[in-house]
Amino acid sequence: MNSESPLRFDVVTLFPDFFASPLQSGLLGKALERGIASVNLVNPRDFTTDKHRKVDDEPYGGGVGMLMKPEPIFAAVESLPTYPRREVILLTPQGETMAQPLFRQLNAELDQIVLICGHYEGVDERVLHLVDREVSLGDFVLTCGEIPALTLINGVVRLRPGTVGKTDSLKFESFEADLLDYPQYTRPAEFRGWTVPDVLRSGNHAAIAAWRHQQQVNRTRQRRPDLYATWQAQQSSTESP
Amino acid sequence: MNSESPLRFDVVTLFPDFFASPLQSGLLGKALERGIASVNLVNPRDFTTDKHRKVDDEPYGGGVGMLMKPEPIFAAVESLPTYPRREVILLTPQGETMAQPLFRQLNAELDQIVLICGHYEGVDERVLHLVDREVSLGDFVLTCGEIPALTLINGVVRLRPGTVGKTDSLKFESFEADLLDYPQYTRPAEFRGWTVPDVLRSGNHAAIAAWRHQQQVNRTRQRRPDLYATWQAQQSSTESP
Repeated sequence: MNSESPLRFDVVTLFPDFFASPLQSGLLGKALERGIASVNLVNPRDFTTDKHRKVDDEPYGGGVGMLMKPEPIFAAVESLPTYPRREVILLTPQGETMAQPLFRQLNAELDQIVLICGHYEGVDERVLHLVDREVSLGDFVLTCGEIPALTLINGVVRLRPGTVGKTDSLKFESFEADLLDYPQYTRPAEFRGWTVPDVLRSGNHAAIAAWRHQQQVNRTRQRRPDLYATWQAQQSSTESP
Repeated sequence: MNSESPLRFDVVTLFPDFFASPLQSGLLGKALERGIASVNLVNPRDFTTDKHRKVDDEPYGGGVGMLMKPEPIFAAVESLPTYPRREVILLTPQGETMAQPLFRQLNAELDQIVLICGHYEGVDERVLHLVDREVSLGDFVLTCGEIPALTLINGVVRLRPGTVGKTDSLKFESFEADLLDYPQYTRPAEFRGWTVPDVLRSGNHAAIAAWRHQQQVNRTRQRRPDLYATWQAQQSSTESP
């Protein structure tokens, strides 16, 4: 039952306008429209108390760029309702790397996710006192935390019943089985001289399943030795008595 | 000179509306407004030739979900101008994982980047004949390739002169030196009983630099043993005669 009650996201962002079109587009847009999840945007600037509405300041110890001040972020988060199963997540390159098991866990365990988007050179370290978890989109730097927040929202909402056509399909996809996906083909059977592999047109379901699995294994071994090693380890632990 | 000529992105997307607000927001919005880079959106649906404007079809060999057909994607990409230094990139979980060195390379070497956003269950494998490189945002699944495309645009445009205040600052940030960032603090010096570390208020620049470096090393070792190992390897190769 829990996984079918709506999931609430609160996004703490200096640029709420960023989210206007992505939250209305495609499958995520439809899921939000249907009430499968909701996204509430809250701007720390609305919680400043000085007349300049200052949200950033210079770093102690020197250095280029500005940092987000702690007070407006605390005030923004503390203005929110608190659901029983809630996590506050800071999006930062210093966090754990986003991956499918994290999306599954957040979807299964929570009914409220508060996302704090960093900006400028980063946020004051004391904001971590508010935070349950730091999450990174990957080993690179962006101008803003809004893109990582949007990614997390999309990946988690995608797992909820009703977002994607058939929930059953989810478990056969990339990373759900620690393997990359197999090659896929659709009509036309021949396009510019490139043909669909015969096996896929054979109607032999066992042969198709075997071909696809072999493609997954080969592709993962070639492209992602790290994933392949994880998969192999799992295989051998499953096979042992 | 090359790195200061504008960089052109062409995004092949079934959901061009997705990009409306993110491309107008924050530092990326300002960079595009100033002409540091440009983003052209092209919809494969505009290149269909049947009356239903069909862009997807069922997979050969069976399975749930629909695939993007090859013809509209080929036609969309072939409608674009071709700059001398161009790459066509497919965003797919099967690709190489996005990271800072890739952003640097794309920024340094190209003046046109064509991004193909997948949708539904994926794209027909023959689209790879158009593609120079497959890139993945991470080990997870999203409902669409638009978010990975936006991430790549943001990360690459960020590196171009004029996007971020001082280009000099870029090289001291996360991942530019294979280490995570150090903790940062701004005013007030005391907030809810939590104080800024004394060293950062000492005015002793050498001590501050040493503290920050030690924090980077400690934090990377604790949180990201993989990055730490890479950094250590680099250190020892630099130190050897």
